[in-house]
Amino acid sequence: MDSISFTPIGMIHTPFTSVENIPIQPSAAQGVKGHIILDNKYIDGLSDLDGFSHCYLLYHFHQSNSYKLKVTPFLDEKPRGVFATRAPKRPNAIGLSLVKLTGIEGNRISIENVDILNGTPLLDIKPYIPEMENVQKVKLGWISDKLDQLSSKRSDDRFK
Amino acid sequence: MDSISFTPIGMIHTPFTSVENIPIQPSAAQGVKGHIILDNKYIDGLSDLDGFSHCYLLYHFHQSNSYKLKVTPFLDEKPRGVFATRAPKRPNAIGLSLVKLTGIEGNRISIENVDILNGTPLLDIKPYIPEMENVQKVKLGWISDKLDQLSSKRSDDRFK
Repeated sequence: MDSISFTPIGMIHTPFTSVENIPIQPSAAQGVKGHIILDNKYIDGLSDLDGFSHCYLLYHFHQSNSYKLKVTPFLDEKPRGVFATRAPKRPNAIGLSLVKLTGIEGNRISIENVDILNGTPLLDIKPYIPEMENVQKVKLGWISDKLDQLSSKRSDDRFK
Repeated sequence: MDSISFTPIGMIHTPFTSVENIPIQPSAAQGVKGHIILDNKYIDGLSDLDGFSHCYLLYHFHQSNSYKLKVTPFLDEKPRGVFATRAPKRPNAIGLSLVKLTGIEGNRISIENVDILNGTPLLDIKPYIPEMENVQKVKLGWISDKLDQLSSKRSDDRFK
């Protein structure tokens, strides 16, 4: 299939300057603050976003230059199919995080619960509307007995 | 910023052959069935995905050839900033849907609760793990008084 080209709309700034030692998910990054600097030409697209408490960020795992189909997640010792994990070394290195919105001033968006590397190129912002998803009876596969490690586990260099 | 190139990993097949009259979100598409045909070379990446009941699909809004910074959502009469909506005419036309996983056989993944156009190029699959997001005290901005319309409202041709 033909490749598709996207241009970042801004940059995500966070306290994490190395791919090691990052909280591995937003639930483990409670209170960690960051901000987005949006390209000025997109400012009008931010209208009405301030009414939402949370949003999804879609971004480019820019330090991920290759992919593996089997990866050993930070929470596990066994290799798992990459599409059953959130690992950054994916065929299309797109990351997804749900963060808390804490303020918007001009092209600067303040966020919290950030599990993202500093300098990450932002691709999209979408409002979080759980009612739209309406999920019931969730099953969690390989990760279901590892959830207790979520808040303490940190990244290492395995996905460099 | 430099553009980033992604190559679809497969295609999403659904009953919706026109951008009009599609349920506007998965919650309005309960029971609507579709399937993904994954490019054969990525099959090993599907291991362990069958343990999960739901997954996110990231895909290209391939019928969206331009963007607007203010859009009038299907649920609303007022223009809203595009980043406060899920409208397809976005600076980077990436869609995000949470669907139910109902079966995986070889490179064919059966899904339900599908609000996606037939023939949509798939970019990524990620497992749904709500514990990772751990969201509390959600505020819903402009959409909070329109949620009752979610299950009945359908798309029209405004984002063609």
